[in-house]
Amino acid sequence: MIVGKQSIQFDQSPFILEAASIAGKKEADGPLGKQFDRIEPDPMLGKDTWEEAESELQRLAASEVLKKSGLTPTDIRYILAGDLLEQMTATSFGLMDFSIPLFGLYGACSTMGESIGLGSMLVAGGFAESVMALASSHFAGAEKQFRFPLDYGNQRPLAASWTVTGCGAVIISTKKGRVRVKGMTTGKIVDFGLKDSMNMGACMAPAACDTIYQNFMDFNCMPEEYDKIITGDLGYIGHDILLDLLKDKGFDISSQHMDCGIEIYDQKTQDTHNGGSGCGCAAVTLCSYIIRQLEKGAWKKILFIPTGALLSKTSFNEGRTVPGIAHAVILEHC
Amino acid sequence: MIVGKQSIQFDQSPFILEAASIAGKKEADGPLGKQFDRIEPDPMLGKDTWEEAESELQRLAASEVLKKSGLTPTDIRYILAGDLLEQMTATSFGLMDFSIPLFGLYGACSTMGESIGLGSMLVAGGFAESVMALASSHFAGAEKQFRFPLDYGNQRPLAASWTVTGCGAVIISTKKGRVRVKGMTTGKIVDFGLKDSMNMGACMAPAACDTIYQNFMDFNCMPEEYDKIITGDLGYIGHDILLDLLKDKGFDISSQHMDCGIEIYDQKTQDTHNGGSGCGCAAVTLCSYIIRQLEKGAWKKILFIPTGALLSKTSFNEGRTVPGIAHAVILEHC
Repeated sequence: MIVGKQSIQFDQSPFILEAASIAGKKEADGPLGKQFDRIEPDPMLGKDTWEEAESELQRLAASEVLKKSGLTPTDIRYILAGDLLEQMTATSFGLMDFSIPLFGLYGACSTMGESIGLGSMLVAGGFAESVMALASSHFAGAEKQFRFPLDYGNQRPLAASWTVTGCGAVIISTKKGRVRVKGMTTGKIVDFGLKDSMNMGACMAPAACDTIYQNFMDFNCMPEEYDKIITGDLGYIGHDILLDLLKDKGFDISSQHMDCGIEIYDQKTQDTHNGGSGCGCAAVTLCSYIIRQLEKGAWKKILFIPTGALLSKTSFNEGRTVPGIAHAVILEHC
Repeated sequence: MIVGKQSIQFDQSPFILEAASIAGKKEADGPLGKQFDRIEPDPMLGKDTWEEAESELQRLAASEVLKKSGLTPTDIRYILAGDLLEQMTATSFGLMDFSIPLFGLYGACSTMGESIGLGSMLVAGGFAESVMALASSHFAGAEKQFRFPLDYGNQRPLAASWTVTGCGAVIISTKKGRVRVKGMTTGKIVDFGLKDSMNMGACMAPAACDTIYQNFMDFNCMPEEYDKIITGDLGYIGHDILLDLLKDKGFDISSQHMDCGIEIYDQKTQDTHNGGSGCGCAAVTLCSYIIRQLEKGAWKKILFIPTGALLSKTSFNEGRTVPGIAHAVILEHC
């Protein structure tokens, strides 16, 4: 069950019973547009503030995944959820009405990996029959939270990524689904001393490398073990760095690697510079394209590694570094 | 194992192997002063910013609990930790150097209940031999984060509470200690529509009531089941409201109730208005006075319920309510 230094292999793998994704217009215009369960063309979602809009994304995703799985809120023992806003406002206000016991999580953009990992342990440990794991982000809310008000219209450097507006939710359950959570490798904080919050791909790549490397060590496997090795939001820059870092450690994942931040937007028509980012980036890509590939067996086994940059505007303004963290889960077709 | 709607009773109860508390000068001057493992008279802890000071509190508490338990970082499978700062900066920078896989949690001031509850499930589920659970807060960091810069010298209303400067950490383990985690009741978000962030005791009391009531229902027990029923930081106002709310539901806990926010400061000589608050309030009181009472058997069984107010300065400024959440754990002398 406990495998190596940082990994778990489940004896009784919990299933991903269902997944649901809600995304914004820019995401709908991208290559994965047709895969999302629901598109919200209005970035305000009919609300008065960006924060309320993100809460609404969470509410919609939670409702949708319940509907798709034929479950009601009373069937869900726990929700494990998080977002990027200070004090997780999107989660608190978005999930309140479901009256489900809540574990609030913060793993920056790695939150979907953290929530699926923890949720799977709760189900596999016999503490719940079904739990919900979800994570969200909103482009405008994130810009306001971490960078500059949109109204400034300031120029984004080429290394910057574009925060995904969206929320992805899964039900993890003992009930049989077509995808199971076979295991996980929990990440630790890795800090290479980078300080550029406009180049988060570079800040997070060392953490992704650390978790993927540890996964190979713990399970004594090679990259070929997986059909895909999918990071959360490293983007183009982080992708290159990750491949280099792992090559230095003796592993070439260039045939398996895919990054949600690269997949979600069309670089030619939607130039987002480094690609997509935010908790929602890995979450909606998982809950649409990735889960479908696994469900139909096009991929048999993948390593899914959402990646988080651990900064706040205060830590950035105080000149601190931007450490990273990445939590991996092993997903299998079944 | 699963009990009622929201509770767990562990078949194999994990132990609290050790606990450690680090507190500031004001806390040292209070009634629990002599119980803390370490006092930090300098509110900056020798650092340049309040945020770094709080990180240092976490680093010191984690080091101290490792020392007391005779363990090294490699003996700890996971840390489950959180704080009140935006994007949990205190945790990210405070715990980085231990290189232990980290689950970041956000439950506002209920975080110590969330971390012990989740940590206990991971140990009882066989996913870890030992984990560390901790939570911190810092008076000046919290004022800066949620209210006004200290330099404004603005007047605090009588309903306001005083954020505790401190960090409490426990090791939860299969190794036998003198206190065990017998069970838990996980809280859901409860919103009575209050909007006064300077009266958080009132905002959180309904959530505390909800979790305590659910605990009585799930375990089919009366308040007399526990030697003490200890909330996190309701303070004087929240204490009165909690007692009234539970009386309305048919339970009188006046003989058992205690609140860490009331215990930690001397109301006569240290007037803090409503009492103490912050993740650190419940955490340092647990990791000093409460654990000692349990270890020596003065109390046989308690219900410990840290209470959190789910607000940010943004949600407050946007006129949103202040919902609450409270996570309970059942601790027993053994």
